[in-house]
Amino acid sequence: MKKISIQGIKGSFHEDAARKYFGEDVEIVECRTFRKVCELLDRDEVDGAVMAIENSIAGSLLANYALLQDFHLHVVGEIYLHIQMNLMVYPGVKFEDIQEIHSHPIALRQCSEYIDQHFGEIELQEKSDTAGAAQELAREKYKDVAAIGNQRSAEIYGLEVLERGVETNKKNYTRFFVLSKHNNPIAGTNKASISFQCGHYYGALAKVLTIFGDNKINLTKIQSIPIVGKPNEYSFHVDLEYDTEDNYERAIHLVLKNVSSLAIMGEYKKGDIELNKP
Amino acid sequence: MKKISIQGIKGSFHEDAARKYFGEDVEIVECRTFRKVCELLDRDEVDGAVMAIENSIAGSLLANYALLQDFHLHVVGEIYLHIQMNLMVYPGVKFEDIQEIHSHPIALRQCSEYIDQHFGEIELQEKSDTAGAAQELAREKYKDVAAIGNQRSAEIYGLEVLERGVETNKKNYTRFFVLSKHNNPIAGTNKASISFQCGHYYGALAKVLTIFGDNKINLTKIQSIPIVGKPNEYSFHVDLEYDTEDNYERAIHLVLKNVSSLAIMGEYKKGDIELNKP
Repeated sequence: MKKISIQGIKGSFHEDAARKYFGEDVEIVECRTFRKVCELLDRDEVDGAVMAIENSIAGSLLANYALLQDFHLHVVGEIYLHIQMNLMVYPGVKFEDIQEIHSHPIALRQCSEYIDQHFGEIELQEKSDTAGAAQELAREKYKDVAAIGNQRSAEIYGLEVLERGVETNKKNYTRFFVLSKHNNPIAGTNKASISFQCGHYYGALAKVLTIFGDNKINLTKIQSIPIVGKPNEYSFHVDLEYDTEDNYERAIHLVLKNVSSLAIMGEYKKGDIELNKP
Repeated sequence: MKKISIQGIKGSFHEDAARKYFGEDVEIVECRTFRKVCELLDRDEVDGAVMAIENSIAGSLLANYALLQDFHLHVVGEIYLHIQMNLMVYPGVKFEDIQEIHSHPIALRQCSEYIDQHFGEIELQEKSDTAGAAQELAREKYKDVAAIGNQRSAEIYGLEVLERGVETNKKNYTRFFVLSKHNNPIAGTNKASISFQCGHYYGALAKVLTIFGDNKINLTKIQSIPIVGKPNEYSFHVDLEYDTEDNYERAIHLVLKNVSSLAIMGEYKKGDIELNKP
């Protein structure tokens, strides 16, 4: 059975993403940090990894882009996961018993409207992950605490869901990369994640983007990254979607003449961005 | 005396940023959330606000861009703050007494190399902010805990700095916006933060960037933001630097014909990105 490393513990959104891509037939390997996720892959202790790369509300995880590059890992796929939050308690605990809410700080912020409306100035405790908050609540049998997290963590840790969909923004999603140590070519790709550096002259980036446009290649993401120590130079993370690999290859060939360096993080099949139906 | 709202408590990096810009002659108003920071400004209860907008390691705070737009606030300045971390203890506590380290999760991650090297598998406690961790340590007189945070929080809460510069990346900075409710024109601006949406055709963004390049305007940041519910359309946050306001105004005028909408978040004088000398 394939082994897939994720950051966090079983029941987390990372497990949701890994299951959406690989199905039930893989073993999930829990890691404390994203660095550990990459280390296991680098040492061939797992066959693949799933790593969050951006969230539609919180933005990109730049540190994870840096890890990809440090470990020379390859993006072989992507997963979009609709982020739905639930209010969970130890079985039998009632809504009126809740004195504290535990979750990851970003999850707490994403549910702040619901919390304000139903609990006012209740005590919030920040935990390092949503599934960890659920696990602790179950283990300690807290009778006055609710955790906020995904459905899977309620199921795994035997919690009762008091309310579903307590997130403020109903269309929030997180995008994950599927990573591999090895760069085996994938047939029929239609998306690529690349990173490049431009020279420092007016319109340097415009020139590169014009090449993509001329070759019918759509940008689905662009983000500049300051290069530390070089105040006027930038690195760009760009995602491209293309209909034919020929167009893509022609464009990359032309772009190479207009950048100071270019790295292809991966060429893969684009993930389904349709939000899961409730 | 002017009142400036910040997220977090006194002694925080937000206070450092506010003092760097406004000096000692302002009153700092502490807020629990970024939303509260904006609300106080919106209700004219403060004269200005200072809000983190991006970090060179962690990336952009997209949720803060959204708040700016929700509250129709104006960017009137920017501050770059070099992020230096210190290991702090209750006075008299020795290095070998430390059993736990408390700080904000991002600060803990930024110091992970130092922690691994000197403490191995020590217990880490995540707190909602670095200054809050320092304040709690001082209040509770913990004799086996260290906090990680800035120099100011050590001074304010009377802690002893055992080691300076414990951050892994020595060139990490956070960029803050200075915000105002009112859009009073500033003389001699050379930087602007804008946001626009492009039509969905190949090269739409390239066209806009070409206009900026032709008018000798440098992009210092670009970031695409997916528009929820419109899978093929994007919003872009762009920062521009220009030598003359004439060039800038000419370019904006031309760009307006090539975008479906454009918002100017602010025109201001660029901040000094030189990292503070240790």
